[in-house]
Amino acid sequence: MRGTPETMRASVLTEVGSLAVEDRPVPTPAPHEVLVEVAAVGVCGSDVHYYRHGRIGDYVVTAPLILGHELSGRIAAVGAAVEPTRVGQRVAIEPQHPCRRCRQCMAGRYNLCPHMRFFATPPVDGALCRYVTIDAEMAHPVPDSMSDEAAALLEPLSVAIAAMRKAAVAPGSSVLIAGAGPIGVICAQTARAFGASRIVVSDPVAARRERVAEFGATEVLDPAAVDIAALDPKVDAFVDASGAPPAVVSGIKAVAPAGRVVLVGMGADNYTLPVSYIQNMELIVTGVFRYTDTWPAAIHLVTSGAVDLDSLVTGRFDLEHVADALNSDSDPASLKSIVRPGA
Amino acid sequence: MRGTPETMRASVLTEVGSLAVEDRPVPTPAPHEVLVEVAAVGVCGSDVHYYRHGRIGDYVVTAPLILGHELSGRIAAVGAAVEPTRVGQRVAIEPQHPCRRCRQCMAGRYNLCPHMRFFATPPVDGALCRYVTIDAEMAHPVPDSMSDEAAALLEPLSVAIAAMRKAAVAPGSSVLIAGAGPIGVICAQTARAFGASRIVVSDPVAARRERVAEFGATEVLDPAAVDIAALDPKVDAFVDASGAPPAVVSGIKAVAPAGRVVLVGMGADNYTLPVSYIQNMELIVTGVFRYTDTWPAAIHLVTSGAVDLDSLVTGRFDLEHVADALNSDSDPASLKSIVRPGA
Amino acid sequence: MRGTPETMRASVLTEVGSLAVEDRPVPTPAPHEVLVEVAAVGVCGSDVHYYRHGRIGDYVVTAPLILGHELSGRIAAVGAAVEPTRVGQRVAIEPQHPCRRCRQCMAGRYNLCPHMRFFATPPVDGALCRYVTIDAEMAHPVPDSMSDEAAALLEPLSVAIAAMRKAAVAPGSSVLIAGAGPIGVICAQTARAFGASRIVVSDPVAARRERVAEFGATEVLDPAAVDIAALDPKVDAFVDASGAPPAVVSGIKAVAPAGRVVLVGMGADNYTLPVSYIQNMELIVTGVFRYTDTWPAAIHLVTSGAVDLDSLVTGRFDLEHVADALNSDSDPASLKSIVRPGA
Amino acid sequence: MRGTPETMRASVLTEVGSLAVEDRPVPTPAPHEVLVEVAAVGVCGSDVHYYRHGRIGDYVVTAPLILGHELSGRIAAVGAAVEPTRVGQRVAIEPQHPCRRCRQCMAGRYNLCPHMRFFATPPVDGALCRYVTIDAEMAHPVPDSMSDEAAALLEPLSVAIAAMRKAAVAPGSSVLIAGAGPIGVICAQTARAFGASRIVVSDPVAARRERVAEFGATEVLDPAAVDIAALDPKVDAFVDASGAPPAVVSGIKAVAPAGRVVLVGMGADNYTLPVSYIQNMELIVTGVFRYTDTWPAAIHLVTSGAVDLDSLVTGRFDLEHVADALNSDSDPASLKSIVRPGA
Repeated sequence: MRGTPETMRASVLTEVGSLAVEDRPVPTPAPHEVLVEVAAVGVCGSDVHYYRHGRIGDYVVTAPLILGHELSGRIAAVGAAVEPTRVGQRVAIEPQHPCRRCRQCMAGRYNLCPHMRFFATPPVDGALCRYVTIDAEMAHPVPDSMSDEAAALLEPLSVAIAAMRKAAVAPGSSVLIAGAGPIGVICAQTARAFGASRIVVSDPVAARRERVAEFGATEVLDPAAVDIAALDPKVDAFVDASGAPPAVVSGIKAVAPAGRVVLVGMGADNYTLPVSYIQNMELIVTGVFRYTDTWPAAIHLVTSGAVDLDSLVTGRFDLEHVADALNSDSDPASLKSIVRPGA
Repeated sequence: MRGTPETMRASVLTEVGSLAVEDRPVPTPAPHEVLVEVAAVGVCGSDVHYYRHGRIGDYVVTAPLILGHELSGRIAAVGAAVEPTRVGQRVAIEPQHPCRRCRQCMAGRYNLCPHMRFFATPPVDGALCRYVTIDAEMAHPVPDSMSDEAAALLEPLSVAIAAMRKAAVAPGSSVLIAGAGPIGVICAQTARAFGASRIVVSDPVAARRERVAEFGATEVLDPAAVDIAALDPKVDAFVDASGAPPAVVSGIKAVAPAGRVVLVGMGADNYTLPVSYIQNMELIVTGVFRYTDTWPAAIHLVTSGAVDLDSLVTGRFDLEHVADALNSDSDPASLKSIVRPGA
Repeated sequence: MRGTPETMRASVLTEVGSLAVEDRPVPTPAPHEVLVEVAAVGVCGSDVHYYRHGRIGDYVVTAPLILGHELSGRIAAVGAAVEPTRVGQRVAIEPQHPCRRCRQCMAGRYNLCPHMRFFATPPVDGALCRYVTIDAEMAHPVPDSMSDEAAALLEPLSVAIAAMRKAAVAPGSSVLIAGAGPIGVICAQTARAFGASRIVVSDPVAARRERVAEFGATEVLDPAAVDIAALDPKVDAFVDASGAPPAVVSGIKAVAPAGRVVLVGMGADNYTLPVSYIQNMELIVTGVFRYTDTWPAAIHLVTSGAVDLDSLVTGRFDLEHVADALNSDSDPASLKSIVRPGA
Repeated sequence: MRGTPETMRASVLTEVGSLAVEDRPVPTPAPHEVLVEVAAVGVCGSDVHYYRHGRIGDYVVTAPLILGHELSGRIAAVGAAVEPTRVGQRVAIEPQHPCRRCRQCMAGRYNLCPHMRFFATPPVDGALCRYVTIDAEMAHPVPDSMSDEAAALLEPLSVAIAAMRKAAVAPGSSVLIAGAGPIGVICAQTARAFGASRIVVSDPVAARRERVAEFGATEVLDPAAVDIAALDPKVDAFVDASGAPPAVVSGIKAVAPAGRVVLVGMGADNYTLPVSYIQNMELIVTGVFRYTDTWPAAIHLVTSGAVDLDSLVTGRFDLEHVADALNSDSDPASLKSIVRPGA
C-alpha cells in the first residue's frame, strides 16, 4: 500500500437531500480483498432514491452513507492472500460481498445471500470516494480498450444480462421491453446481443422512444397510443424496465404461452397483476435482484462492440457535484451521469 | 363396433342450473381414436362452475353441453389406425385433443395448444354419457388392481403432478399448500410421493384441516390463526390450491429466495400480488393449465400405494342424479363425487 | 395444382456410385402438406456417403433413392387443410416428417421420433428433383432478401444451432470446435452469433484453418502441432464437427469442469473415450441428431448478417451433374456444392 | 474445547498395505469450523483402493495418510464464528472443504472446486481417528432416531442422490442400475425413493442379485444370461455403479432416446463407448463426482424410512482392526463395514 494515503475525500449522504464531501479513512484490504482507486462511478436510480427519500423498501438510511455502486478503477493494493501482480490492474467492480457459506451462496445464488453486504445499501458504504475495498474475485480486469466509464457501466449491463438469461433470450427470440430509461436502453442492446430478432420497446416519452431506436429496438411503441396487451404476434419474453404497474400488466398480456416475464424495474411493493392470464398461459414470472457471474459476459459484449456503453453517458461530474449528478434525471435528455472521484 | 349401440344416454347442461338426460348418437372413432365406454366420471369444480354460472372466463356455454372430464372406462372400439387388440382394455382418459401441429404442440407443450379441444369446455362435449371418443394415445391402460374411480381421478392427480413438477418438488423439499379441498388433498399426497420432507397445508375450515392431516400434510395451519407469510423457516415452494387471493399473497411471502410459486386454484382474473417480494427474492411464479405426460406417473403413484385416490370418493351418482353430484359440494364432508354413467 | 406437370426429372441413386436422371411422378400433397418446386439443394456429407457406400449405419439403400435434404423452393400447391394463399411463397424446408403421436413427438423431441420419415434416408426419397411434398409447417417462409442457396443451407445451419443450444453457448462462452469443414465453419459462425467470446477451431488442413479464420474463429489450431487436450484455459464447451476419434478425445479433455461436449460429426460407431475425465469433471456429453424448432432462429441469423451462408457456396450444378457435385469434396478448395434442379 | 484431549489415536496408512495406529494431535477448529468427535466411519472402495494400490488416478499417497470419509459424530467444540450451542450436537459430515471463491464454487458446483480439500484424499487426512475438523455448515445435524452408522452412510447415500438428480429420476421413471455392490444397492433404494416405477438391477453375482431384490429393485438381471443392451422397453436412465466397461456399454444401449447415462462407478480411465448410439439417440452422458446439497435430502430419506442404511452394515471394527474392515470385501456376504474409532 506504499503510496496510498491514509485518508480520502468522500461524498456522504448526511441526511435526506443533503450531501457533504468529507474526509474518511482509506480502507485496508482484508486478506482476500483488493484496494481499488475509484476511476468512475455511474449514478443509478437507487442512489437518487436514497438521496431523495432516505430509504428503499426495508433499507433505511439511518447514518451517513456513501452512495454509488457502479464503478471501475485501478487496483492500488492487495490483501495478503491475493496475487501481488494484480496491483495496477484496471478493474470493473462487482459490488457484492456475499457470505459464501449460506444455502444461497453454496447453491451459486450469491446475489440472494441474506447476509450480503452491497455497496451503497445501508449500512454499507458505496463508491463515491477515492478508494474502496472488494473481494479480489469481484474486481474483474478490463482491457485497455475499454473506457473507465464503460467499465463502471458494466454494472447496469450486468443487470440486463441477468434479465436476458432469466428471460431465456436466445437467437430468434422476440422480446418486449417496457421503459426506455438507462436500463431499458441497455436491455434493448443486450437483447440484440443475445440474438433476439424482434425487440419491441415501449415508453410514453417521445424523446426516449427516438433514442432507443438507435440502441437495438426493432419496434418502438407509445403505450398511450397502442394497446401493448394486444401485441400481435405475442412475444416470447417481456422484460419490465419501467417499474410502472400499468406497463407490467399490459406487458404480461403481450406474452405468448409458456413465455417469460422478468421484472427489473422497481415499482410499488404490491399491485394488481393479471393472475388468470399468467395461469392459463403458464407464464413464468420472476424478477432480477442483482446478478451472478455476469462481468465476463458483459466485458465481451462491450469489447466485441455488441453493446455500446460509452454513448449512454450524458453528464460528467466530480465529487463536489454529486448532487448535480443525482439531479440530472430532471433533464429528459439525460441518460447516464458519471462521477469521477479523482477529477 | 359390433355390439355398440347407435344412441346413448347423456346428461346435458341445457341452460344454467338445468340438466336433462337426453339421447345422443354414439360417436364414431376417427382413424387414430378409440371409442370408450365410460365407467366413472369425477365431478370437478369447473363442472360445477359451468353448471351454476354458464361460463369460466372466456369460455361461455352457448349451446347444450355435456359436462365431465375426469373419466375412466373400457375401450369398446378402435379407429382404423389403432391396434385392434386394444378393444376391451380398461383405460384412464387424458381428456385433451391437441392439434399436434402448432408451435406449442411441436415444442411438447400440447396442453397450451391454442386449438385444443378439451372435454366439457364449450363447445366440446364431456364425459357424462355412455360413450366418448379420444385419441388412442390419450387412453392410458390401467391395471386391474386399480378401481374405475381411482382411474377417473388420475385426472386431478395429473394436475397435482404437473404442479409438483413446476414446483420442482424433490426429496427433501419443503412445500406449502393453500387449500385442503380435493386438489389440495391430492397435492399433499403427491408432494409426499415426490419426496417432500415438510408439507404445510393451510385451510380455514377445521374439518378440512383434520382430513388433510391423514393425506400427507406434516403441518396443518389455520390461516385465521397463524400468519402464513411469517412461516419460519420459509418453504422451497408454494402451491396454491385455493384460488383465494389472500392465501396466494401470504403463501408467496412464505417462500424462500429463488423458490417456486405454482398457482393451481382459479380465483379472480386480476388481483394484487406482493410484486417487490417476488422481485427481491427472485421467486419463480407460474401456473398449471392442464398437464403433459402425467398419466404414466400417476398410474405408478396409485399402484405403488404412494397416493390413495379411492379414499377421496364421498359420493356416487348415476346419470339421472348429476345435479345432486354437482351440488354435493354444499356438504362440508363431501370431497369427491363420482358419476357412473352405466349405473 | 394448376400448372404443375404430372411428371418431373429426378436424379436417382440407382446403385452404389451410380446416378441416373429419370422421370418420376410429381407427388400430390396430402391435406396438411404443401407441394414445393425445388430451387436449390445443398450437398451434404451424408449424400456423398450413400452415393459411395450405399449405407449409413443401419440405413441401407436397397432400392433406387433420390438424395438431397438441404433445400429451398417455392410453394406450388397446397393440401386441402393448408391456407391457399401460401401458394407462391418462397420457403426453406425442414426435411422431417415425424409421426406427431409417439412419446418423443409429444415431448417436443420430434427429431427423435422412431417413426420419422426423413428426406434422402432409405426408403424415403429426397430433394434432387423438381418437386417435393412436406408438411406445411415444415416449409418456413423466407424473405426475398435471402438467396435460394442460403435458404437451402438453413438446414446445416440448423444443425449448428442445435449444437450451440446443447452446448449452452451464450454471450461470453468459450467453445472449441474440431473440424473446419462445412459444419465446422457454420458452427464457428453460429458460436459467434450466440455470443461466444472465444472460438477455438482445430483442423489438420492449413487451407481449412485459413478459411475458418474468416468465419468467426478467434483462434485456429493445428492439432498436429498443438496438444488440444492441454488447451489453457479450458473451454466451456466442445463441439465436434470432425467425426475423428482422436479429435473427440483431445477435445473432451480441453473442457472445463461441468462443461459440455456435443458430438455432431459422425465417426466410428464405437471408440475409446476418456471416461474417467468425463466423470471426474462431470462433463455433459451428448450428440446432435437433426434439430427441432431451428428454422426461425436460422432465418434471423442470416437476415441479420450474423451468419453468412452465401459465401460458403463453392460450386453450382444442375440435375445432370449431381455426380460432379457429390465428388466435389475431392477439391480441398470446395466447401459447399449446390444443385439447382431447375437449371 | 474443555475436556478435549490434546492427542488422539488414529489409524494411519503408512505404506501400501500397511496400517498403524498412531498418536496424532487433536486438530483445532478454525473460526468457521467445528471439532467433531468421530462416532462411526464407513469403509468405501476408495479407502480400499488407496490401501492396496497407494493411488487413485492422479492422487498418490506419498506420505502417511488417515483414511475414511464416510462419517458421523458429535460436535465437541466450535470455532470462534460458530454458534456455541452447537456443541453436543450429533452430526453427519459432508467431507468436503471447497475454496468458496473459485468459479466452480461461486456457480454452486463446489464439488468440482479445483482447490478442494477432501477427506482421505492425499495429502488430506480422513476420519479413521478420534477427532476431525470440518466447516460448520458441512456438519449436518441428525435426529436422535438415526443411528451413528446410518448417519455415516449418508455419504454414499449422497452419491446416490447426486446420481438420481443427474439421471432426472422422478415419479414414473424407469432406471437401469449396473452393479449391486454397496452403491448399487443404495442407488436402487434411492431410485425407489425418487419415485421410479421400474428399477432394473444387473449384477453377475447371484448373491448380490438376491440381496438387491430386497432393496428396491423391481427386476434383477444376470448380464451373463440376458442381453442388457436389448432391454425392452428401454429405460429413461442408466446409472452405472459397477465401473465395468462392458456393463457401461450394454447399459448405454438400453437407454431410450434423450435418456440419461450417469457414471458413478470408477473403472478404467479410457474405454470404448457406443458413440454413434449416444449421438443418434441424443443421450446425455455424465458422471457423479461427489455431491452438492445432498445431506438434507439424505436425512429425510432415512428418517422417513424410504431408504434403509442400517441393514447395509455387515461388519463392525475398532481402530485396531481397520485392515480387517478394509479386507472384508473378500467376503461376498459383506456389504458395508463400519469402523467405530471410539470403540
